[in-house]
Amino acid sequence: MILIGERINGTYKDIGRAVKNRNPEPIRDWASRQVAQGADYLDLNVGTLADNPAGAMKWLTLTVREITDCPFCFDSPNPDVIRAGLETGGPGSIINSCSAERAKIETLFPVAREFGARIIGLTMNERGIPRDAGSRAALAMELVAAADEFGLAADDLFIDPLLLPVGVAQEHAAEALKTIAAVRMLSSPPPRTVVGLSNISQKTFDRSLINRTFVVMAMALGLDAAILDLCDDSLLDAIATARILLNQEIYADSYLRLSRSRRQPDQRLS
Amino acid sequence: MILIGERINGTYKDIGRAVKNRNPEPIRDWASRQVAQGADYLDLNVGTLADNPAGAMKWLTLTVREITDCPFCFDSPNPDVIRAGLETGGPGSIINSCSAERAKIETLFPVAREFGARIIGLTMNERGIPRDAGSRAALAMELVAAADEFGLAADDLFIDPLLLPVGVAQEHAAEALKTIAAVRMLSSPPPRTVVGLSNISQKTFDRSLINRTFVVMAMALGLDAAILDLCDDSLLDAIATARILLNQEIYADSYLRLSRSRRQPDQRLS
Repeated sequence: MILIGERINGTYKDIGRAVKNRNPEPIRDWASRQVAQGADYLDLNVGTLADNPAGAMKWLTLTVREITDCPFCFDSPNPDVIRAGLETGGPGSIINSCSAERAKIETLFPVAREFGARIIGLTMNERGIPRDAGSRAALAMELVAAADEFGLAADDLFIDPLLLPVGVAQEHAAEALKTIAAVRMLSSPPPRTVVGLSNISQKTFDRSLINRTFVVMAMALGLDAAILDLCDDSLLDAIATARILLNQEIYADSYLRLSRSRRQPDQRLS
Repeated sequence: MILIGERINGTYKDIGRAVKNRNPEPIRDWASRQVAQGADYLDLNVGTLADNPAGAMKWLTLTVREITDCPFCFDSPNPDVIRAGLETGGPGSIINSCSAERAKIETLFPVAREFGARIIGLTMNERGIPRDAGSRAALAMELVAAADEFGLAADDLFIDPLLLPVGVAQEHAAEALKTIAAVRMLSSPPPRTVVGLSNISQKTFDRSLINRTFVVMAMALGLDAAILDLCDDSLLDAIATARILLNQEIYADSYLRLSRSRRQPDQRLS
């Protein structure tokens, strides 16, 4: 499982304000906490408060890069903001995200190719998010074909089946799970799969329970990556356990202690 | 999910002694606790201490039947013991279990038919438990064919892919998960699937975490039933959450509270 830290996102008030005021402290604090918890990537999203979002993404990228080499997942609906991140953040980044709309694909897939970046493709288009897994998989197939067309390796494409809050659109949860299984059959090698995990539990009462239950169910169906709350230890314990059960990590009686010891919440990277 | 309470089993010391001494108290106590926690079936296993195991099963069945109408899952390697349970316990029971060995099938499938019982078929034969899912699914197919041959409905057959302790035979966990998915493709309608959940976590340090992680992963792949520790509330919370995420139960903000309120650990049935 590839773990992508969700927390440096301008839709959180502390980060939104920090980006607007160019205050590096909360940014670096969340970066070091997530890296210490085992982040493989850090999602960076400048939010909507910054006057110059591309400039804000450059600043955000440099601010985090001062304390960690952890690669980035540049998260914006605006291609210029994503490009600003890619130009600043070094190689090995992920573009988050591109819907299955031809204009978006023609804009962002060449950018992924230019920067050697991976890209998250969303199973939605002009008509929205389809309810059923079959229609989502059809959109995923368009993204797979586009990856081939624009010279991206299949496993540099991450399909996001799009999680909606289970309290609002309950039937989407099961369809997203089915989509994850279906995407593995689309090509050989298949694209990878990713979810924005916290979406599933928005406005529910026990978010951690819903998040950790969903993610291990999705892992059973082949999920490769998640953008998630890396500061939720019970979530990380569940993922560590699922990795053991899927035979992806060698069992030891102390596997949980070992997994926790790799997380170092008090260690400030520099 | 069909929940089968595991605890009235003579391999537990308190139950083994109670069966040997014909002491109804511990038996009734565990029966009422498991029924209050939502048991759909109670597994009954007389263990190895009783001199007359068939007589012991009759006594065990009558002892539990005095306090609850919950149907039984008669658990014994000895067909005479199973028959004793079926003759005493009323209709709608489950036979636990029959391996994919011709002699066993010819003994037990007609008994299932005679008593209108369901039956658990194990994916093992004279040569033991195959390591890979494909070989397990092949044995499951033999059991499906046998169900047809002996006039049992496909969904009265529960295939058990056989869980082994993850600390001893780690690679079997992932193969068992794959078997659950494969079994759903064997026939239309497919047989059901069941696991003896607690086996997966034997001699591990955090049994509940491993049990609840495995069971929701298996549910994502279509698991229908589990023999499990019904007194583990965190396990039942995980199952309730997986049911919501699979759209098998309607979401309410209070779903967890509702699910817990259906469990009534202090209510003594009579």
